[in-house]
Amino acid sequence: MKLYTYFRSSASFRVRIALNLKGLAYDAVFVHLAKGEHRQPQYAKVNAQALVPTLELDDGTRLTQSLAIMEWLDEKHPTPALLPKDPLGRARVRAISDLIACEIHPLNNLRVLQHLKRALGQTQEQIDTWYRYWIADGLQKVEA
Amino acid sequence: MKLYTYFRSSASFRVRIALNLKGLAYDAVFVHLAKGEHRQPQYAKVNAQALVPTLELDDGTRLTQSLAIMEWLDEKHPTPALLPKDPLGRARVRAISDLIACEIHPLNNLRVLQHLKRALGQTQEQIDTWYRYWIADGLQKVEA
Repeated sequence: MKLYTYFRSSASFRVRIALNLKGLAYDAVFVHLAKGEHRQPQYAKVNAQALVPTLELDDGTRLTQSLAIMEWLDEKHPTPALLPKDPLGRARVRAISDLIACEIHPLNNLRVLQHLKRALGQTQEQIDTWYRYWIADGLQKVEA
Repeated sequence: MKLYTYFRSSASFRVRIALNLKGLAYDAVFVHLAKGEHRQPQYAKVNAQALVPTLELDDGTRLTQSLAIMEWLDEKHPTPALLPKDPLGRARVRAISDLIACEIHPLNNLRVLQHLKRALGQTQEQIDTWYRYWIADGLQKVEA
């Protein structure tokens, strides 16, 4: 397996943690987001969404979206399990994961922060305030 | 079952579609987001995240986050299935769902649009441009 990843991408982090927990070997291919390597034609062939991570299987099949990759890993390599066995426990873990992946992370993605700067003309200080606001709001919801 | 929902909430829409596809009866409790009913203390007791939907089971257990609710529905009421049976097909459907739920929807949520207006002082026209930008960007990624 080959994982297209970036050290600072929290979505890639999740998948690396899952792979390591399950003891699965993979080759890491680094895509430098800050340098815009994910928007180069070379990476568009790998992932048309221009996002990391992408997990490439040995037969060339490519999986995208961190949570979908983790569900696949859990179905194909069930031990150790990422999700509990009972449906209610699974729903709880998935709800917490979705809260982080859907309510916090997308708002503080590099592409959104760059859009705030370029299209909305926000200063770095305003962008930092935006970042802190959604992190605090989201983590309060996780704790609740 | 009781579903806390709002007609214009696309996350609630997903769950209503799933319940109807599976032919499951439920009582709808309407939470008027535009009037801020989700931020009232009454709803905080139901869902500490102040988000819809919430699915309340007959024993009082409450499930949150639309995709986690749909996975639970699919595990407890497997027919008709929301996901294919093979792991790769499941990964593909989940990736498309996550792309919509994580990359498009959170950026255009009511709370984010209100934040753009109140905290960042954006005009309605700028907010509409923001909305269109992320819808177009996200749906291009889905098509790709």
